[in-house]
Amino acid sequence: MTRPSYTLSEITARLGGEWRGEDVRISAVQPLSQAQAEHIGFLANPKYKAEVAESLAGAVIVSAKAAAEFPQRNLIIAADPYLYFAKVARLFSPIVEAKGGIHPTAVVEPNAIVPPSCEIGAHVYIGEHTVLGERCRILAGSVVEQNCTLGDDVLLHPNVTVYHGCTLGKRVEIHSGAVIGADGFGLAFAGDSWFKIPQTGGVRLGDDVEIGSNTNIDRGAMSDTVIGEGTKIDNQVQIGHNCIIGKHTVIAAQTGISGSTTIGSYCIFGGGVGTVGHIEIADKTTVGGGTSITHSIKESGQHMAGPYPMQTHKEWARNAVHIRRLSEMNKRIKVLENQLGTADTQTDPAE
Amino acid sequence: MTRPSYTLSEITARLGGEWRGEDVRISAVQPLSQAQAEHIGFLANPKYKAEVAESLAGAVIVSAKAAAEFPQRNLIIAADPYLYFAKVARLFSPIVEAKGGIHPTAVVEPNAIVPPSCEIGAHVYIGEHTVLGERCRILAGSVVEQNCTLGDDVLLHPNVTVYHGCTLGKRVEIHSGAVIGADGFGLAFAGDSWFKIPQTGGVRLGDDVEIGSNTNIDRGAMSDTVIGEGTKIDNQVQIGHNCIIGKHTVIAAQTGISGSTTIGSYCIFGGGVGTVGHIEIADKTTVGGGTSITHSIKESGQHMAGPYPMQTHKEWARNAVHIRRLSEMNKRIKVLENQLGTADTQTDPAE
Amino acid sequence: MTRPSYTLSEITARLGGEWRGEDVRISAVQPLSQAQAEHIGFLANPKYKAEVAESLAGAVIVSAKAAAEFPQRNLIIAADPYLYFAKVARLFSPIVEAKGGIHPTAVVEPNAIVPPSCEIGAHVYIGEHTVLGERCRILAGSVVEQNCTLGDDVLLHPNVTVYHGCTLGKRVEIHSGAVIGADGFGLAFAGDSWFKIPQTGGVRLGDDVEIGSNTNIDRGAMSDTVIGEGTKIDNQVQIGHNCIIGKHTVIAAQTGISGSTTIGSYCIFGGGVGTVGHIEIADKTTVGGGTSITHSIKESGQHMAGPYPMQTHKEWARNAVHIRRLSEMNKRIKVLENQLGTADTQTDPAE
Repeated sequence: MTRPSYTLSEITARLGGEWRGEDVRISAVQPLSQAQAEHIGFLANPKYKAEVAESLAGAVIVSAKAAAEFPQRNLIIAADPYLYFAKVARLFSPIVEAKGGIHPTAVVEPNAIVPPSCEIGAHVYIGEHTVLGERCRILAGSVVEQNCTLGDDVLLHPNVTVYHGCTLGKRVEIHSGAVIGADGFGLAFAGDSWFKIPQTGGVRLGDDVEIGSNTNIDRGAMSDTVIGEGTKIDNQVQIGHNCIIGKHTVIAAQTGISGSTTIGSYCIFGGGVGTVGHIEIADKTTVGGGTSITHSIKESGQHMAGPYPMQTHKEWARNAVHIRRLSEMNKRIKVLENQLGTADTQTDPAE
Repeated sequence: MTRPSYTLSEITARLGGEWRGEDVRISAVQPLSQAQAEHIGFLANPKYKAEVAESLAGAVIVSAKAAAEFPQRNLIIAADPYLYFAKVARLFSPIVEAKGGIHPTAVVEPNAIVPPSCEIGAHVYIGEHTVLGERCRILAGSVVEQNCTLGDDVLLHPNVTVYHGCTLGKRVEIHSGAVIGADGFGLAFAGDSWFKIPQTGGVRLGDDVEIGSNTNIDRGAMSDTVIGEGTKIDNQVQIGHNCIIGKHTVIAAQTGISGSTTIGSYCIFGGGVGTVGHIEIADKTTVGGGTSITHSIKESGQHMAGPYPMQTHKEWARNAVHIRRLSEMNKRIKVLENQLGTADTQTDPAE
Repeated sequence: MTRPSYTLSEITARLGGEWRGEDVRISAVQPLSQAQAEHIGFLANPKYKAEVAESLAGAVIVSAKAAAEFPQRNLIIAADPYLYFAKVARLFSPIVEAKGGIHPTAVVEPNAIVPPSCEIGAHVYIGEHTVLGERCRILAGSVVEQNCTLGDDVLLHPNVTVYHGCTLGKRVEIHSGAVIGADGFGLAFAGDSWFKIPQTGGVRLGDDVEIGSNTNIDRGAMSDTVIGEGTKIDNQVQIGHNCIIGKHTVIAAQTGISGSTTIGSYCIFGGGVGTVGHIEIADKTTVGGGTSITHSIKESGQHMAGPYPMQTHKEWARNAVHIRRLSEMNKRIKVLENQLGTADTQTDPAE
């Protein structure tokens, strides 16, 4: 298990960019504050310039603009130092290749198709009529039910569950505990009890989708739930039935998207966001952590927010009581304005 | 795998209601906008009447009132079109029957009782003294520890975990990744560390309870945590130890119910709701998504709410700062009212 | 499966404290309201004194101060009745000992080290070069990938997943569905798609850490994510990459800690708390349920809060609209104050 190492010239030969100083040999990426002579650090935010001077790193990835300030250091100059750092990190930690073969404890139903290039781990279950692409890695304890289709190079970490009839694109990666295609939450009230609405749609994950640990993507009620290519979803996210999520959107942990919501491409959701169902969110919307999205966002490129501001418990208790009386407070101000003949310059959507 | 199909007269023979027009053969339910000649659609909300005219559906389920407006179409007339649609969908997608038998890779401890009508999937584990009812389906990778009792027709999807000593009623359905009976979070502070309080109660799920994917129902500390019959719980819900939840209550995804909370019957909780512990919530309470329930709700039938309103980040930043000064704002208004001799008509619980 | 029973004198001989009255034999701990003659109850909060008089309990654990009020009852007098109750409960429900041995269906890679004192359950997978301490219990369906190190007496409940390269201290207990060491959510934008940043750090859990069901502790990007000894984490908690959490901190269910957050020792987090990333939270901070932590908390020992107050939906709708106009409301008050020459005694950080 010797890890790879590369000189600066070898790195730039593979990834582009320009190197300066001594052509040192590097074995890992580290933050500037922890890097040693065999490490390469990076400066993505000029705010941390001072760390470059103090760092023991053998080399530093910087922008062309910043390079001029560090004539003494070994550098790689890159248009986007953060992206370049990510690529160097991947160089030192290449994607694990599938060891072709089915573990003797795995169960693959006779009419499933598993190419010999796939790695099927211990205690895996692959259901009937499920078809895997080349070089898939299905790790220990994962279950893929019947009638699923997986593209090439899919990676399921241990203990993932994919329900029947789901489609996963190429290079989809799903982390442990995630569940793809469980029933959507559809109920019709039958006078004294709830009648379950069969969930007969499936789930389609586009190419290069990544799904975090213990995340749920529910199957559709009649048509499919769809996640567009390149979209990245963090842990403990809930995507309700019949949601349609665009391409290259990023959703952080513990966010919940209610059923039949449509989200555009290149959106960025912080953690712990919630939405009502049956709404549309435009492309390139940014939503801060902890926001409750209560209606559609139609204009693209907006930055939304909504957490209640944290206070000390004492301040919170003193202030929060007035939340329940804001409408009244507004009226009291109006009375005063009327008494004083103050011009009421506001328009009041509430009254 | 030919899916069933039915004529309108066959459907009404089974489910009641009245059909009109041509006795067409139907093979699936679809939304009006996507339905083709072999599909049946439904009109539950008169708001969508225009879709009926445009739909290519072979037939439409409507209320008696709406029926008069569509003399040209093939109809099924039902008292509750949405519920009727759900029942038709079930007709086309019948509940899967257990294939009796224990998979050779499953482990069933010798003194567990598993009737031959049960379907025990690959890599399932059934612990000592656990007793299953007839026709249970325990799918791949699920674990039911020792001393559990499962009623007839229980369905555990893949990778479910049921801890020891839990009781599941008839027709309970539990989705993948859900965990029933993990230890409640009980700790006593011991001066410099936390002493774990043994959780010696169990969990009881009533008949027809459905538990969503990656949901947790913790076992009780001394007595049981109880979920009443017909209650439906969505994904990623957390039910703390010793909660008592009534019958036919519905709880949407990512809601968290703190320990020792009692919730009535026929309540409806939106997603992402949180509660403090040791409170009571009356029957038929509706709670909107994202609400923090901070005290008991004693009067039944109320509709509660509480998410912070979403704004653009700029507006949020400008307004949120005043949340921390609402009490002061209230006092400033009072000063003005006193100066002007304005009658202060409010009662102020905060001061 | 006869459960143990003890007389009051046997209990105090083991746990300290003083007994009074008759030396009755006790077989379980129960709440005062449910206890029978063979049970012992406890009075931790003087508010519930009346329950002692009414209880059928064979004996009651009380403080020295409360003891004087119950001369007729069989008592154990303890400095901290709640902690004493927890210890008595443990006496009646001792920690289960490992049954040494590897289940025939488990897969242990040849170069993993599993001492004979360990209990390895059905369908467990232990990866290459993983080393277990003495008396570990790894229950059915759990997966521990390669290169992990587990201390003595670690307990993994069924269907736990530990990714490669993680370190678990002594007596660590992890509940079902929890995932330790999945990739942190690190992405660099590459112009039209997201480039995944390899997550090459690990996770270190200190001695006596407990991790709840379906909780995630992500591995670090370059260095480790660390949970200090004695820290207790409830269900469905998300700990992002490179978080450093101190000792004996308690985090309730559904809380989300964003990446690179540092949390001190002896903190108490309620349920459903969220934090932004890259902040520091001082020792002994208490955070109420549902709070969004948007910045560092530098002074230790504070009690923070932040849920939006629940209202009826009608009140909420009437009041919430004014949240979006608080800044304007503040300005209107200022105008009135200026008109009246009222001294503006506030300092206004917002304008």
